[in-house]
Amino acid sequence: MPKRKIAVVITARPSYSRVKTVLSAIQNHPDLELLLVVAASALLDRYGSAVNFIEKDGFTIAAKVFNVLEGENLTAAAKTTGIGILELSTVFDNLKPDIVVTVADRFETMATAIAASYMNIPLAHIQGGEVTGNIDEKVRHAITKLADYHFVASEGAKERVIKLGEDAKMVFNTGCPSIDLAEEVLESKALPFDPYEKYGGVGAKPDLSKGYLVVMQHPVTTEYKDSRKHIESTLEAIYSLDKPTLWFWPNVDAGADGTSTGIRAFREQHQLPNVHFFKNMEGKDFLQLLQHSDCLIGNSSVGIRECAYLGVPVINIGSRQNRRDRGGNSVDVEYSQDQIENAILTSVKKGKVSSSSIYGNGKAGVQIAALLAELPLQFHKTIMY
Amino acid sequence: MPKRKIAVVITARPSYSRVKTVLSAIQNHPDLELLLVVAASALLDRYGSAVNFIEKDGFTIAAKVFNVLEGENLTAAAKTTGIGILELSTVFDNLKPDIVVTVADRFETMATAIAASYMNIPLAHIQGGEVTGNIDEKVRHAITKLADYHFVASEGAKERVIKLGEDAKMVFNTGCPSIDLAEEVLESKALPFDPYEKYGGVGAKPDLSKGYLVVMQHPVTTEYKDSRKHIESTLEAIYSLDKPTLWFWPNVDAGADGTSTGIRAFREQHQLPNVHFFKNMEGKDFLQLLQHSDCLIGNSSVGIRECAYLGVPVINIGSRQNRRDRGGNSVDVEYSQDQIENAILTSVKKGKVSSSSIYGNGKAGVQIAALLAELPLQFHKTIMY
Amino acid sequence: MPKRKIAVVITARPSYSRVKTVLSAIQNHPDLELLLVVAASALLDRYGSAVNFIEKDGFTIAAKVFNVLEGENLTAAAKTTGIGILELSTVFDNLKPDIVVTVADRFETMATAIAASYMNIPLAHIQGGEVTGNIDEKVRHAITKLADYHFVASEGAKERVIKLGEDAKMVFNTGCPSIDLAEEVLESKALPFDPYEKYGGVGAKPDLSKGYLVVMQHPVTTEYKDSRKHIESTLEAIYSLDKPTLWFWPNVDAGADGTSTGIRAFREQHQLPNVHFFKNMEGKDFLQLLQHSDCLIGNSSVGIRECAYLGVPVINIGSRQNRRDRGGNSVDVEYSQDQIENAILTSVKKGKVSSSSIYGNGKAGVQIAALLAELPLQFHKTIMY
Amino acid sequence: MPKRKIAVVITARPSYSRVKTVLSAIQNHPDLELLLVVAASALLDRYGSAVNFIEKDGFTIAAKVFNVLEGENLTAAAKTTGIGILELSTVFDNLKPDIVVTVADRFETMATAIAASYMNIPLAHIQGGEVTGNIDEKVRHAITKLADYHFVASEGAKERVIKLGEDAKMVFNTGCPSIDLAEEVLESKALPFDPYEKYGGVGAKPDLSKGYLVVMQHPVTTEYKDSRKHIESTLEAIYSLDKPTLWFWPNVDAGADGTSTGIRAFREQHQLPNVHFFKNMEGKDFLQLLQHSDCLIGNSSVGIRECAYLGVPVINIGSRQNRRDRGGNSVDVEYSQDQIENAILTSVKKGKVSSSSIYGNGKAGVQIAALLAELPLQFHKTIMY
Repeated sequence: MPKRKIAVVITARPSYSRVKTVLSAIQNHPDLELLLVVAASALLDRYGSAVNFIEKDGFTIAAKVFNVLEGENLTAAAKTTGIGILELSTVFDNLKPDIVVTVADRFETMATAIAASYMNIPLAHIQGGEVTGNIDEKVRHAITKLADYHFVASEGAKERVIKLGEDAKMVFNTGCPSIDLAEEVLESKALPFDPYEKYGGVGAKPDLSKGYLVVMQHPVTTEYKDSRKHIESTLEAIYSLDKPTLWFWPNVDAGADGTSTGIRAFREQHQLPNVHFFKNMEGKDFLQLLQHSDCLIGNSSVGIRECAYLGVPVINIGSRQNRRDRGGNSVDVEYSQDQIENAILTSVKKGKVSSSSIYGNGKAGVQIAALLAELPLQFHKTIMY
Repeated sequence: MPKRKIAVVITARPSYSRVKTVLSAIQNHPDLELLLVVAASALLDRYGSAVNFIEKDGFTIAAKVFNVLEGENLTAAAKTTGIGILELSTVFDNLKPDIVVTVADRFETMATAIAASYMNIPLAHIQGGEVTGNIDEKVRHAITKLADYHFVASEGAKERVIKLGEDAKMVFNTGCPSIDLAEEVLESKALPFDPYEKYGGVGAKPDLSKGYLVVMQHPVTTEYKDSRKHIESTLEAIYSLDKPTLWFWPNVDAGADGTSTGIRAFREQHQLPNVHFFKNMEGKDFLQLLQHSDCLIGNSSVGIRECAYLGVPVINIGSRQNRRDRGGNSVDVEYSQDQIENAILTSVKKGKVSSSSIYGNGKAGVQIAALLAELPLQFHKTIMY
Repeated sequence: MPKRKIAVVITARPSYSRVKTVLSAIQNHPDLELLLVVAASALLDRYGSAVNFIEKDGFTIAAKVFNVLEGENLTAAAKTTGIGILELSTVFDNLKPDIVVTVADRFETMATAIAASYMNIPLAHIQGGEVTGNIDEKVRHAITKLADYHFVASEGAKERVIKLGEDAKMVFNTGCPSIDLAEEVLESKALPFDPYEKYGGVGAKPDLSKGYLVVMQHPVTTEYKDSRKHIESTLEAIYSLDKPTLWFWPNVDAGADGTSTGIRAFREQHQLPNVHFFKNMEGKDFLQLLQHSDCLIGNSSVGIRECAYLGVPVINIGSRQNRRDRGGNSVDVEYSQDQIENAILTSVKKGKVSSSSIYGNGKAGVQIAALLAELPLQFHKTIMY
Repeated sequence: MPKRKIAVVITARPSYSRVKTVLSAIQNHPDLELLLVVAASALLDRYGSAVNFIEKDGFTIAAKVFNVLEGENLTAAAKTTGIGILELSTVFDNLKPDIVVTVADRFETMATAIAASYMNIPLAHIQGGEVTGNIDEKVRHAITKLADYHFVASEGAKERVIKLGEDAKMVFNTGCPSIDLAEEVLESKALPFDPYEKYGGVGAKPDLSKGYLVVMQHPVTTEYKDSRKHIESTLEAIYSLDKPTLWFWPNVDAGADGTSTGIRAFREQHQLPNVHFFKNMEGKDFLQLLQHSDCLIGNSSVGIRECAYLGVPVINIGSRQNRRDRGGNSVDVEYSQDQIENAILTSVKKGKVSSSSIYGNGKAGVQIAALLAELPLQFHKTIMY
């Protein structure tokens, strides 16, 4: 029997990190063939070119698709998605996958979902059913309605996908594959690499041996006009605390430039002798960095998921992770310098918390690959009520 | 206060007929400005060029978008949608509507929904919440998850949209605007025009004065490889009954060519002395034709909706209208010559049935326009559970 | 040394026939690897799906690109080209050819030329430098200005390309590869297949043993509004002469539908007891058909090229082949029933003429492959004056 | 008689500056209606958002088209062009211009040329026939072959366009419209505005009263891999000379990021106490700045054209302006710090040279508008040999 061909479309650096163990598990599965498609910001330097990590990790890329339209507005997000559909349908037409896998809820993942579902290719969705309250949510739940298989990351997500009218037999709580990576670093006792040397970046090189903060804050699509103001609260807080800090640039998104511009302008006007800026970091190294940090500040889902598993304190800013299920590691604050500063001071004092498996137990990749090999190939469905 | 600008995107002939009263009501509303965008198969001759009817009806077209990719396969449907997003986002960027309205569930309506929702333009969806069991259903429910306002056509649809996690305050059972047109012909006593003279078409010109059948059968997207076989059962039944019959060509869709090819081939091999073929007909004239017919055969939603209101018997073939709510006027049959023939004979004998308002009471257009003028402009939402 | 990777993009049935010997010669060359890309109308059934012939001939297809936008107007031609660029650039980015080859002057070949030249991939153009006086000419000469190597079909074409400012060292009169195929049938004494049986088609099946006419008439892009009227002169002439006739449907082009519609309408209104219609024919079979015909009527370049080599009389109608170099086999007429009829009668009476090698000696494919293997890889050029 | 509708497509800041007097002349012409389409990098902030200047100058924009695909490679240039065709054809289809005007030779101007010529809209090309020896040249001459009217900037260009086979009756040496602006500042005796105050920018604010240098250096498409190295020679020269310098960021182009990145990196590693950086400047202000400068350094065509008219010395670096006709004001140097330094020192010492009208006499805009009003509307042409 020929192997099932599984096309996975990666459109951004964080999505790659998240599903890396799924890719490995597909590649290692005797009945599966991995067709890795790399597209959108995953190909672009200014968002940390995931493609380089992918190739270094030994994955073969079946097709690359440049489809990010430039423009500091939401029109560009729509057009990027349109071009993505146009091109991915050609890619699928040529690769002829048995199943297409799409990850999470970034706007351009809709291109994968539409191309596959319109072409009657069974579509698997990783990480549906979550609640965040922004455009990501429209995208995420719409993809659920287009998808045939659902690999969700928590019990809450599973219930929600079923409530959305999906067949419970096709909804699987595999946990989030990002936890698979977290599992590998959970017992790490010290940072096993020098981040300045390995990842370059710009700015100061504070001594990390006495603890450090990590910042990762993305613009929120529905609030993109305010993204500059939002990032400034965080910048002011970090500037005022003046602790060793490792800061990661945001993803591409409408408004990315508001956030990036805010950071650049702040740097030009202030000395930041304790802050280093990174463009990106290989997923596992990033988890190591978090594992040994005092706390994570920002609005990345990594704080809600991987950090819950690692027991790392998180200061979660603003609405981006709004209604995602939480472990006991995070504190929610508004876009307010004071709230951010106070929350950081409290968290640093308290230190690590206990590990939560609310988002998985470290076996998601293997479970997803097994399901992809066994599930009936189907693309015809109807709402369950 | 400036008028609210309402962009309505029409992508196919039947969609235009369906929402014509909505367009008029928007145009006549003192607080609204209509921006009519005509795209996809609505611009193409071989699907009955809705654009000609639109202009004849006196509507001004704000923009035209050619985006139908040619190809007898599903890839073309995906690509048509991608091109639609690319172009509609430019159109919206230039027209700057306050609200965008998308109609029903044809595959390319997703382009409207994505362009608007990604650009943070409030999106109204007409006719969500229905159940049919094919690709249309994936599209329809995904659009519900992208839309901000829902104008549904029945109580069943309203319940379903709310179950999908939408805010009940934004879900309105206005009835289907197609019933507004049906209302205007309900009391008609005789066919007020000569269809051969007014609409041309090809084939025989049977005498309609003693009753006649109407056939309208579209390919089913998820069964498109069988569309030729499916149409042949109907062709054989009509051929065998040899009653005066008016047959309408199908919409564009993946597989349209299977259906069309089947009809063409049958015509080349058989004499059909009682059958006339039309490409299309203005919506109200079509309802007049149904009002005075013995029964409608096929799988058009017109049989389930307008004919329920008109009390015209319908032979509904196959899965296309699968789980749509029914009035008492329809009989479901399989793709079987025998079943089709028998159902026609029984229906013709029984005659007209009583009118059902399950899909509306004839005021949908005016109600929808009033809501568009009053609803808060919002594009931020979250799932209700 | 790795083989040079030569991407050839085929966008239409006649282009495939024309360069088939080039494809074989590349495939058989020890230093070359053929990357065959099939796009546009070459993939579509209603234009005779070249892709089926290509696969039957044993070529492996590296990528397929559906890019024909539907619409009976010139806008669709522009958009088809735009989509072609968008997609072919992804194809080239993934296949990484050393040289891209584009054929002739159909509007969508510009997509190949732009994608390759913009990506700094050396571009070879087959069949530049000819003169026809319509939109094809704008396209053809613009492609010459984008191309790095020129494989032209006649001395006149060579001179013209050099006058256009190209480096004479990069302009090669290889003859037209279509003549390679003609060479194989030149000595054929009888039609070696039954065209009705092998190619189906519709209409009468006249006896071919006493001679027959072949008709192939395409719409002219710059006159597309008149294409229906133009085809009617030819239809009337053929109808009036009532000789055994084999008629080929036109290519896709803006206006194709004018021509096709004209043919369909004529057939519905007239009995044509001596005319059979074909959608397409494998290139070599078509040449056999011409070789044994009385004459070819229409505006196909096959009349000017292959028929010159075969010595088959040609009635060349209208402006499409306007200023192409001629052998002694053709007569030019206007869109006039009388002129067409008279020219046919005269030609049939006179019979075959002597073979001309004005468009090549039957070795073009092998010569082009040899040049592709040896030419320096370069994409930087400047006008020579 | 209705006014002729003239669509002018502006795709970049420098193109806007160049044709501003043409736009005004069209707008002021009693028989013409201006339809201004703004697209590509002209809409993007990081290339100096020409759209803001356009609106401030009082022009009404008929349509905006975002079509720049992001990516630091040539694939993006090809795709940007493809998207441009797709969208501009919709724009033209909706605006229905009588003539389309395209400017110069940037890669994306090909989109305008193809959309118009394929849609049988007469195409006017401003500034054909020049020689530069890079990809621009392929584009420029290909557009000449697609265009119906040629408004060229010098006698050399006129001869070349005619040699390319164009009808001499359609080739007009109007001079370059950029000279119209230069004409307005020729007599200016002092800089009439404070550039720091009016245009912001970053870096030092050297005293300009004792003379200053202006730098504008773009990446060269065919050498884009070297663009960083190329800009570094210039940076080193300016750093070493340490004179008051006003530096302009480059256009978007494949490789723009090499140039920009080079500048950013140099700034991080060196103090530049005499250099100020501008993103952009309104065309006439820029000419004022040049008029009062010591010399211009870089590879902008402004050095060859406007500066020739103004008599401002120019250090022209590298191959970008290779074979363009020269006035007596410029010195050509290689990408060499030494050569650049020496040439600057010599030029500064020598001072202003006499004005040359090789690129026009200041009346181009008015002449072009007059021709657009009078020329026969035609899109059918053939090569003249």
